[in-house]
Amino acid sequence: MSDLWLQDPRDALRVGEGFDLSAFDRAGTPGFTGDKAAAATLMAERGALLSELQERLYANGRSGGTRNVLVIVQGLDTAGKGGIARHVMGMVDPQGVALRSFGVPTAEERSHHYLWRIKKALPRPGLIGLFDRSHYEDVLVVRVDELVPPEVWEPRYNEINKWEKSLVDNGTIVLKFAMMVSHGEQGMRLMERIDRPDKRWKYSVNDLPTRLKWDDYQQAYSDVFERTSTEYAPWYVLPADRKWYPRLAVTEILTRSLIEMDLRWPKPRWRPDAQRRRLVKTMTPEQLAASLAETASTVQGAIDESVDVNLEAAKIRDGHADQETRDSDLATIASRRSDLETDLATTLEQKRALLEELSPELAAASAAIVDEGTKKKGKKSGKGKDSSAAEEPSKKKSAKKQSTKKKSGKKSEDKAKKAEKKKAKKGK
Amino acid sequence: MSDLWLQDPRDALRVGEGFDLSAFDRAGTPGFTGDKAAAATLMAERGALLSELQERLYANGRSGGTRNVLVIVQGLDTAGKGGIARHVMGMVDPQGVALRSFGVPTAEERSHHYLWRIKKALPRPGLIGLFDRSHYEDVLVVRVDELVPPEVWEPRYNEINKWEKSLVDNGTIVLKFAMMVSHGEQGMRLMERIDRPDKRWKYSVNDLPTRLKWDDYQQAYSDVFERTSTEYAPWYVLPADRKWYPRLAVTEILTRSLIEMDLRWPKPRWRPDAQRRRLVKTMTPEQLAASLAETASTVQGAIDESVDVNLEAAKIRDGHADQETRDSDLATIASRRSDLETDLATTLEQKRALLEELSPELAAASAAIVDEGTKKKGKKSGKGKDSSAAEEPSKKKSAKKQSTKKKSGKKSEDKAKKAEKKKAKKGK
Repeated sequence: MSDLWLQDPRDALRVGEGFDLSAFDRAGTPGFTGDKAAAATLMAERGALLSELQERLYANGRSGGTRNVLVIVQGLDTAGKGGIARHVMGMVDPQGVALRSFGVPTAEERSHHYLWRIKKALPRPGLIGLFDRSHYEDVLVVRVDELVPPEVWEPRYNEINKWEKSLVDNGTIVLKFAMMVSHGEQGMRLMERIDRPDKRWKYSVNDLPTRLKWDDYQQAYSDVFERTSTEYAPWYVLPADRKWYPRLAVTEILTRSLIEMDLRWPKPRWRPDAQRRRLVKTMTPEQLAASLAETASTVQGAIDESVDVNLEAAKIRDGHADQETRDSDLATIASRRSDLETDLATTLEQKRALLEELSPELAAASAAIVDEGTKKKGKKSGKGKDSSAAEEPSKKKSAKKQSTKKKSGKKSEDKAKKAEKKKAKKGK
Repeated sequence: MSDLWLQDPRDALRVGEGFDLSAFDRAGTPGFTGDKAAAATLMAERGALLSELQERLYANGRSGGTRNVLVIVQGLDTAGKGGIARHVMGMVDPQGVALRSFGVPTAEERSHHYLWRIKKALPRPGLIGLFDRSHYEDVLVVRVDELVPPEVWEPRYNEINKWEKSLVDNGTIVLKFAMMVSHGEQGMRLMERIDRPDKRWKYSVNDLPTRLKWDDYQQAYSDVFERTSTEYAPWYVLPADRKWYPRLAVTEILTRSLIEMDLRWPKPRWRPDAQRRRLVKTMTPEQLAASLAETASTVQGAIDESVDVNLEAAKIRDGHADQETRDSDLATIASRRSDLETDLATTLEQKRALLEELSPELAAASAAIVDEGTKKKGKKSGKGKDSSAAEEPSKKKSAKKQSTKKKSGKKSEDKAKKAEKKKAKKGK
C-alpha cells in the first residue's frame, strides 16, 4: 500500500518558496495515487502501526522521557478539523492523546498574553497533543476582524516562530496542518449542516458572516504560510475538498514523524530478576507454574510483534534509501531481537529455578511441557538464535489487540513478511 | 446478541444489601451467558450505538444542554482500568470524552481539600468523563497507608455521598465501577509485566509493597461499597479476572444509561429557511443545483440512521417491558420520523424555489432528476408519508461512518429490522 505514496507527503505538502494559495488545487491529492477505497485500507494499516508507535511514545513519557508531539490543525468552518480528531486520533489509545479546542477566548484568557492559554494546554511528555485551532487564530480571526490594530498582530509572526523554536528545541515535534476547502465546497457543506437535522448543532449563525470575509481569510492564511513556515515547524497545506485525503495525509505524516523518533521500549530502572524473586514469594507454586507455562509464547509473541513494528517502520523510513542504509537498519533490528531473546532465555531460566526451589515436582512437570513446546516451535524457543532471526517472519502475534486492530495488524504483518523476503533475496 | 444478557447488568452488578466482597467470584461473568468471542461481537455492536448516542449527548452539550456522564473506575494494580479507557472509550469520538487519571497528589493538590482536584476535572456538559482512580483514593490508599488519621478519613464517606448527590441533582449521571481481580490473577499479571520488555514500563517497584497490603485494601474496598453505594450513584463491582468481561459490562451499562437519557438532536435556535436563503446568496446556481440533487438521499439517509438508533435503543430499553410500553415507544419513534420527513419535504420545496429564482433552466433539469429519484425510491422521497414509515427498514445509511463502524452499524441495522418485523407481527 505504501507504494501509493509517490513521495513522502511531507515533501508533497510542505509550504515552500513561492507557495501560492490562490493557485492551490483544493480537490487535489498531492503525492497520493490511490482512490478513496485504497486510502481507507492504507489508513487502517497505518493506524495499527501508529497505535503501536504511540504506545512506545507514551511508555517513554511515563519512564522519564520528555519528548512529545503537537499537532496543530487550522482551517475555516467545515474544512474537516473535527474529522482529524475523530478519524485520526480515534485510531490510538485515548490515554495517549490530549485534545484541545480553542474557541473565542474567555475573559480570563483575554486578560493574559495570547500564548498563555496555548502554553497551558501543551501536551505532557509522551502524549500526542491535538490543537483544533491554536495561537494562529491570533493572526487570523484577530486580524480579519480587526480585534487589535496591525501594530499588535504584526509582531506576532516572529514571536510565534521564536516560541515554536523553543518547543522544538525542547523535544516537541510540531506538525502544523492547514485544511483548505474551496469556496464552493464550503457552501455545499454549510447547506448540508442547515438541511440535516442531525448536523444543525454544528452550524452557527456566525458561519455566514465569516464566509463573507473569504478573501480576507485567504490573505491572512497566505501570510501565515509565508511568515511562519519554518524549517523546524513547517506548514503542511492540505487540500480538503475530499474529506478522506487530509485524514490519510495527517495519519501518514504523523506515523512517519513517530518512526523518525526511533522509539524503543524504555529500559526499567529496576532489576527484573530481583522483582521476580520478590513477587514469587506472594504466589503459590501452582500460580508460578501456570505463569511459567505461558512465558515463552507470551514474551516471544511480544518480541515478534515489536520486531514486526520495527520492520514495518524501517520499510517506510527506508523507502528511498540506498541498500547500505537498509542493510544497516535490518542489522540493528536483528541485533535488538537477539537482545530481547537473550532476555527471554534469562527469564525462563530464572523462573524454572524459582519453581524448582518451591516445588521440584511442578518444575519437572513444567519442564516436560516446555520441551514439548520447544519441539513444536522449532527455532522459536528463543535460545541460542543468531541475529538472522530478525528476518524470519513471526508466526504468532500476542493477543493484546482489539479485533479491529488485529485485522489491520495482520495485513501489515503480511506486508512485512513480503518485504523481508524481498530484502532477503536482494541481500544475498 | 442482546439476549446474551440474561438481565440488565446494572441489576447483576449493583452492590446490594449484604454484599460480601470476600465471597465475590472474580472470574465470574454475572448476567452474561456468552463467551469471549460473543462478547467481542456484542462490544462492536454496542460500540456503534454508543458512538451514536455519545454524539447526541455532545450535540446537546454544544447547544446549551447541561447533562453529562461521569464514569469512575477504581481497582488495584493490573485490574484493567487502562483497558476500559482504551477499549470502551476508544470506541467513541475522542472529542466527546474527557479522560483524567488521578495519581499521587501534587504539592498544590495536597494544599487543598481532597475534592478540589476532582471538581476541577469534572467533564463539561455533553462530555463523558472517565476518572481512572478518583476521590475514592482518599478513603482507600489514604486509609490503608495511614496518610491521615481515621478521624480525618472517616467523615469522608458521608461527604462524598453528599457531593455525588449534588452532581446527580445537577444532571450528571455518575457510574462507579470497581474492578476486582483475584490475588492469584494479580500475581500472574504483575509477573507478565516484569517478564515482557514491552510491558515493563507499566510496572513499578511500589506495586509489590501495595500487593502485600491486599487484605487491608479488600477491607477498605468493602467499606467503600457499604458506605457509598447509593441509590443515585451505586457501585457496580466487576469481576476482573477475565479481561473482556468488565469491558463488555461497562460498555453495556454506559450504553443503557445513555439510552435512558432519551437524547434527541437539539433543535436549532435559528431558522433553517432564513439561513438557507442567506447562504444561497453566496453560491452559484450550479452549486445550489448540485446541493439540491444530493439533499433527498443525504437527509433521508440521516433520518433513517437516526430512526435506526432509536429503534435499537428502544429494543434494549424495552427488553422486559410490556406490550403497551413497546407500542407506545414505537409510536413515538414513528411520530418523530414523520416530523423529520415533513422537515425534509419543506427543505426540498424551499431549495427548489430558490433554484427556480436563480435559474429556471437548472430548476427544470433538477426537477427531472428528482422525479426520477422518486420513482426509484418509491415511498422514500419523504413526502406524504404516514407514521407507519418508522417501522419500515431503512435502505440506505448515510456515508458518514468509518468503515469499521459501518460494519457494526450494518449488523445493528439488521438486528433492528428483525426486531421491527417481530414487533409488527406481535402487534397485529
